[in-house]
Parts: sequence; structure tokens; C-alpha cells
Amino acid sequence: MAVRLLQPRFGRKSAYLSYIWRKFTTKFESIVYSEHGDPEKVLRLQKAETGKFGPSSVSLRMLAAPINPADINQIQGTYALKPSLPAVGGNEGVGEVTEVGSDVQSVRAGDQVVLRAEQCLGSWCRHLVVLEHQVLKIPSGLPVDAAATVSVNPCTAFRLLKDFEDLQPGDTVIQNGANSGVGQALIQIAAAWGIKTVNVIRNRTNVEDLKSHLKDQGANYVVIDEDLKSSEMKEIMKSIKPPKLALNCVGGKSSMSLFRFLGPKGTMVTYGGMSKQPVTVPTGSLIFQDVNVKGFWMSQWSIDHQKDASKATMMEEVCSMLLKGQLRAPPCTRHPLKDFKTAISEALQPYSKTKQLLILND
Amino acid sequence: MAVRLLQPRFGRKSAYLSYIWRKFTTKFESIVYSEHGDPEKVLRLQKAETGKFGPSSVSLRMLAAPINPADINQIQGTYALKPSLPAVGGNEGVGEVTEVGSDVQSVRAGDQVVLRAEQCLGSWCRHLVVLEHQVLKIPSGLPVDAAATVSVNPCTAFRLLKDFEDLQPGDTVIQNGANSGVGQALIQIAAAWGIKTVNVIRNRTNVEDLKSHLKDQGANYVVIDEDLKSSEMKEIMKSIKPPKLALNCVGGKSSMSLFRFLGPKGTMVTYGGMSKQPVTVPTGSLIFQDVNVKGFWMSQWSIDHQKDASKATMMEEVCSMLLKGQLRAPPCTRHPLKDFKTAISEALQPYSKTKQLLILND
Repeated sequence: MAVRLLQPRFGRKSAYLSYIWRKFTTKFESIVYSEHGDPEKVLRLQKAETGKFGPSSVSLRMLAAPINPADINQIQGTYALKPSLPAVGGNEGVGEVTEVGSDVQSVRAGDQVVLRAEQCLGSWCRHLVVLEHQVLKIPSGLPVDAAATVSVNPCTAFRLLKDFEDLQPGDTVIQNGANSGVGQALIQIAAAWGIKTVNVIRNRTNVEDLKSHLKDQGANYVVIDEDLKSSEMKEIMKSIKPPKLALNCVGGKSSMSLFRFLGPKGTMVTYGGMSKQPVTVPTGSLIFQDVNVKGFWMSQWSIDHQKDASKATMMEEVCSMLLKGQLRAPPCTRHPLKDFKTAISEALQPYSKTKQLLILND
Repeated sequence: MAVRLLQPRFGRKSAYLSYIWRKFTTKFESIVYSEHGDPEKVLRLQKAETGKFGPSSVSLRMLAAPINPADINQIQGTYALKPSLPAVGGNEGVGEVTEVGSDVQSVRAGDQVVLRAEQCLGSWCRHLVVLEHQVLKIPSGLPVDAAATVSVNPCTAFRLLKDFEDLQPGDTVIQNGANSGVGQALIQIAAAWGIKTVNVIRNRTNVEDLKSHLKDQGANYVVIDEDLKSSEMKEIMKSIKPPKLALNCVGGKSSMSLFRFLGPKGTMVTYGGMSKQPVTVPTGSLIFQDVNVKGFWMSQWSIDHQKDASKATMMEEVCSMLLKGQLRAPPCTRHPLKDFKTAISEALQPYSKTKQLLILND
């Protein structure tokens, strides 16, 4: 099972089909790597084939694609999903359908679609030919920043709030790394659903600006990690229900400290490990508080739900929140494809305030 | 919830009733403490009241009671269940019914019963008056060592194997602290059910003797923690199914190392923390292997199942295994009540090879 999970079969199959198809197809500009390593060194802009067009195919003119941390790790060779090399970088992205095969039913020319990011399709390219089941239609009218970044972070936040505890309006969630992409989406989705959030962030220059920014998104409480033992935090905890859910994308001491606040029988879900430290769980929380400790990986969820409608349903709901303004796209810095090196370099900076977005139809 | 769990209401109520009853009853020798602290200092042998006899009462002549680590922690004041003081020490134990109240139906004079250990009844005494629901009948014919120690360790092992994963014959379980009381019971119950066990122990003098002892109980594999990266361990793991369940009573590095062997979507259950270190979980195990990390506390399970028949059913099954010889009582050192100080002193030694058992009808 572990081996299949790390190297999913469909990944190989699709790579194999791509290989066959490439022999017959046109070349378009793509950002390609032939070996794993430092993304600033191994990536190059070159013409790559789009794949052959068949009856189940969907031809896409790509509009935009973000540079996500997982994309960087994938190029470095440290991510659990590994495409076969050479590969086009990127996983998430939005495109416009230019042509569909005779068997395709769910989308048609002119539709906007997002790639199912778990499939290692390679989104950093100008054109792409995929299979119908590898894309999801999104409503028209979404700004390109929102459309290009909807599949990973907002969907992760959505699932974290849906799948682990039965959260009702008035219930509480606590999270660390609250200013991460997922964290900010989670604040907004929780606010829309009436779920209160206690948001833990690291101290930094102009931390009050970040606090205001998160509160503006709907965060009920924002606390600096150094203040978790403060009387202010005690007052916050007195005023709310004990959190049923704790969300961790940091690990180490940060995750350990969340257990002080997680209610009995509550669940901590880890979806990231920014500190590169393991998750440390007090023995007493497990034995006497009966807490559950779990993990979540959006890619695996998407693989597990390839054949049902749950991803499409979620996408509809998340896009509707984006259209209503309940959820905002992350602040993005746009880069034309030719400037991809600047974009990558920016994406590699810690504490970057914006998501780097490659504009693919410039 | 946390506060109720730490100081269960029934505990206070039963203590209050005991207080009232004591005013009318006979005194018998008991091991009592009036304040928390070093068990070698705060315990004394004195005459204490048995409680008043009513229509739902069961009068017991106590036969034997073990000194468990939780009893020691309870006296030290560090355990999650705290009786009101002064209190009689001990929680687990076996007695013979001498008289029952007019409303009592499930037991009668001459029956052997065990105390429901989660109720803080105080088992280190010669006589005890309890309520019908505070005891469970056991079959006659069990040796006193087995009867006195059946309620906590074998029942914990039974639940660990039953409640977290659907284990079938041929499935595998890995555990650390495999020579603990629970660990040894687990080896035997798993063997009786056809479940394979990989047992991790710490290195020590005469470690081969311990290995033989555990294998003699039915352990399929016994590995010293220092050898977990050895080729021998790799061969073992190749020859068995990936463990669905990992059981941890140690914490720290020892628990961390079990995640290397736990199968995808498997569960680690922590039921003890002998190293006094927290449980450390690799982030990748949570996110990419989708493992679950949980805790188990026999006392809480018993509280949660006070009103159903599941504890009686389990007791019947465990006692039947003891009678058939599929499960053996732990090696015990017997102490007459008057020598309780020696017994306590022995129980405080690390690496003790036997369980200290107070004989109460000497």
C-alpha cells in the first residue's frame, strides 16, 4: 500500500500515455525539469509536447498556475508524489477549454477548468491536452488569481473543517500557522459557517498588521505563539467552547502547545510540517483526554475520491464562496512565463507575503 | 468534561456514602493514607470501617489485591483518578461474598468477585461492603494470583486488541514495553486469537531469558530496541503483514521508532508512558501514511461501560482463557497484610520481575 501511495499507478500510466502521445503532438512553451534538485538550477523554459488528442481528451489553453510549496518539494525530489522525468513543473492551475473529444460530456469549449492537482499533469505550460476526468469545471466570472489557486489550499481548508469533527455553528477550532494559505482560507470558510477560530501565529515585524489582516478575514482570535500562556489566552479560552479540532501545519513545540487547548475527545489534524519537527503529543492527552491525532493530505483525498462527485461538489461550494466574496483569493504576484526564474526565486523566500503566480496566456 | 473525568462524581458520592456508613459499621484492618506523598511514608495499617450494609450491598471478605503502578501514582497524588481522603489504598482485587442485601441478584454468598477497579473502592483491606454494581462475579476455580490481577492488565490487553483495528488471524501487532503486565497478557491473548506479535523490549542483563520467556508465552518475534534497524528486523518485517496496530506504553524515541513499522492507515494506541517522554509522531506518517494516533485508559472505558454488559462479557472471556491455560497470571510475590511496607518497597523498585500481591485473608 505504501509503495502504491508513493508512486500511484495512474501516475505511471498517464506518464506512459503522455509519452506515446508526445510523439504525435505540437510543442508549446513549458517549464521543464529532467532531474531533481535545486529548482533555481534544474528548471528551464523549453518547448514540450502537449500530448495526443483523442476522443476523451480536453485541450486547454492554460491561463495561470501558482507555485506551491509542494511543487518546489516535487522538483527537489522530496515530495511523496513523484512524476516520471522529464516532467513539466506545477500541479495546480486554471485553463480555458479550446477543444473537446467526441466522448467528452462534462465540459465544452470556452469553459474554464482547473486541473485535478493530484495527477502530476504539469501545469506550468501554455497548452495542455488532458483527459476529461483530469479536470473540473469551475464557474465563469472567477478572477484568475482565485481560479488558479482554488484547488489546493481552499479545498484543504474545506475538508479539514468537514471530515474530522462534526462542527456546528458556535463550535471552536484552533490552528497554528494561521497565516498560511490553508490557514487563511480556513479562517474565511469557518467564519462563513459560524465556526469560531483561535489562530496562532509566530511573532514578526509588524505582527499587529498581520493580526488585523486575519481578523479582517473573520478570525475571532489571533494569538502570537509566545503568548499562549498569557492571561489574555486564558480569558479567550474561558469565553469559548473547548476546541473540538486543532489544525497543525508546523509540528514540534507548536503542535505540542495546541494540546493544552484541545478539548477532551478532540482531534488534531496535521496537514503540514513547516518546522520540520515531528508532532509531539503529551501522553496524558492521549490517555486521559482521549484525543485523536490524525493527518490529512489533499492529494490522497482526491485520489480516494476520483470516482465520486465529492470533489466537484466541494469545488462548486468553494467557488460559490469565492464569487460571493466570503472567501478571497490569496494575494498573488503575477509573473509572465518568461520570468519564471524570478517567480521561483520569490517562491523560495521564507515569509513571502504573496503567492507567486505564473501567467500562461501572456 | 476534563474536570469531571479527573474527579468523577460517582467517586465523591461513593466516598460520601462510605463516610455516612462508616459511622455504623465494624472496623477491619486496612492500608490507609490521609495525605498524598511517598507511599513508603504516608501509608499505615489501621482499622477502618467497611461501610454500612443496605439492601443493594454486597459484603466481601477480601482475598488478595495487587499493588499496581496506578495505585502508587494515586497515593502520590499524580494519577488522574483521585479518591477523597482519607482513603484505603488499592483499586483492583478479589474477594469472597459473605452476605448480600435483599435486592442483590447477580451474586450470592460464596461467590468470588472482583472489584470494578475504576471506582476507587480501596482494595487493600480485609473486609469491604460495596454495592452490587461495583463488583463482577468471576468463575470459581481461578488461582488467587490470577483472580486478583484479572481486572486491569488482561482487560486492557483485551480491549487494545478489540477496539481499534479489525484484527483477523494472521494480522500483525507491534508493541513496545512488551514485558509489561499488559504486554505479556497481550502476547498471550493475541496468540490465542491467531494474531502475530512483534515485541520490542529494552536491552538488559540476561535478555535472552526474557526473550525465551515471552516466546514461551506465544510471542512470534521479540526484538531489542537497539536492533530495530538490524537486518534481522528487516527480515521479520518482510515475512509478515505490515502491522495494523502499534501499542505504546513507553513514549519518546521508543514510540517514534514504532512508526517505521506501522502499516499505512494503521493505528498507534498509547496506554502508558514509562519513559515520561511525550509520544513523537513523524509528520510524514500522519500526512502520507494516514496513521491514527490514539490513547486508551481502562478506567475511562469501564466508566463509559458501567451500564452495559460489555465488562462482564469481557471478564467471562478473559477468565475462560485463564482457566484453559491460554493466559497465565503474572508471577506474583505474596505478602501478608502486616508486611505491606515490604510489599510497597518492592513495588517501587524499577525492573521488578514480579507483581506484589497483598494476601488479605491470612
